[in-house]
Amino acid sequence: MLDFYPVAIEKLIEEFAKLPGIGHKTAQRLTLYVLNLPKEEVDEFSKALVKARGTIKYCSICGNFTDTDPCAICSNPSRDKKIICVVEEPKDIMAIEKVREYNGVYHVLHGVISPMSGKGPDSIKLKELVSRMKDEIKEVIVATNPNVDGEATAMYISKLLKPLSIKVTRIAHGIPMGGDLEYADEITLSKALEGRKEI
Amino acid sequence: MLDFYPVAIEKLIEEFAKLPGIGHKTAQRLTLYVLNLPKEEVDEFSKALVKARGTIKYCSICGNFTDTDPCAICSNPSRDKKIICVVEEPKDIMAIEKVREYNGVYHVLHGVISPMSGKGPDSIKLKELVSRMKDEIKEVIVATNPNVDGEATAMYISKLLKPLSIKVTRIAHGIPMGGDLEYADEITLSKALEGRKEI
Repeated sequence: MLDFYPVAIEKLIEEFAKLPGIGHKTAQRLTLYVLNLPKEEVDEFSKALVKARGTIKYCSICGNFTDTDPCAICSNPSRDKKIICVVEEPKDIMAIEKVREYNGVYHVLHGVISPMSGKGPDSIKLKELVSRMKDEIKEVIVATNPNVDGEATAMYISKLLKPLSIKVTRIAHGIPMGGDLEYADEITLSKALEGRKEI
Repeated sequence: MLDFYPVAIEKLIEEFAKLPGIGHKTAQRLTLYVLNLPKEEVDEFSKALVKARGTIKYCSICGNFTDTDPCAICSNPSRDKKIICVVEEPKDIMAIEKVREYNGVYHVLHGVISPMSGKGPDSIKLKELVSRMKDEIKEVIVATNPNVDGEATAMYISKLLKPLSIKVTRIAHGIPMGGDLEYADEITLSKALEGRKEI
């Protein structure tokens, strides 16, 4: 760090650089941008930060971010409470909601089982998922990411819930729409063949 | 925007997305990251924003960002006040200072002459530069960026200061160190040939 930059600027650069995917150069660019903004806008940004962190909690039912408890989805009477979609993070709910086709509720694991990073079943919200099985659940759709940890977590959930005679399904893997067979990797292609359907 | 995300989160995503080079997806990622931070760290970030914007002003001599007036460079007695390096933005000072070889002072134009964007000589700090020529200036080094606007601004400054019999120089253009002749564009190569030196 060079000493000729005022402390307040260095400090803000440092704060920006703490954010994921933002290096020192970008942090500097963002800081200089902020310095040129009208004072009111910076105040608004600053307040938005504190407010978001301060007012947001997790839904006591599904674990999604919310400002009311239960969250908007869990307390929506038109949602089918008998279908639970299990996701890794709140942002996955965002992705699924955008499709506007799913009408069940969610369960956020806040992580995945990852033996490589020393994360066992107790480090994610599995107990909370099992405790929701008291109600009459028709189906649990496991929508963890299609990678090693996500698949392992899906298998674990399946084995955990099957004894309770609950239907556990996994989202389909295959060639993405608009994708190209030629560029699909072997595992995706094999999953696509395996999951073929009569038309 | 979907309605199930709490307002405070939407608001913070929106604020992040206003920053240059940060789209909606990145803004969402940054927001979710902030929500998982300890409360004190978010407070610190928030305060850094307001403080940086609030305490920072421009140096009345050179136009650099500063918290004292004159800035640390202009008030440093070991700096040679007779050599002025003219740059477009405060961040260019940062770049030159990193080299730790330049010992003169600076002048920040806060922009360039750009007829295409309707920015004439009056839109940048040229009058301020001319008024600094009252002191006994040995040399003005023009370090605007080597693009159309930067070159035009350099030419303009040269024509402005030459009548005052002040030595105006331009930083050298050429093949960057570690670069490859094969990949150099024609204009850079032509500048490199033109600026050749005896060794």
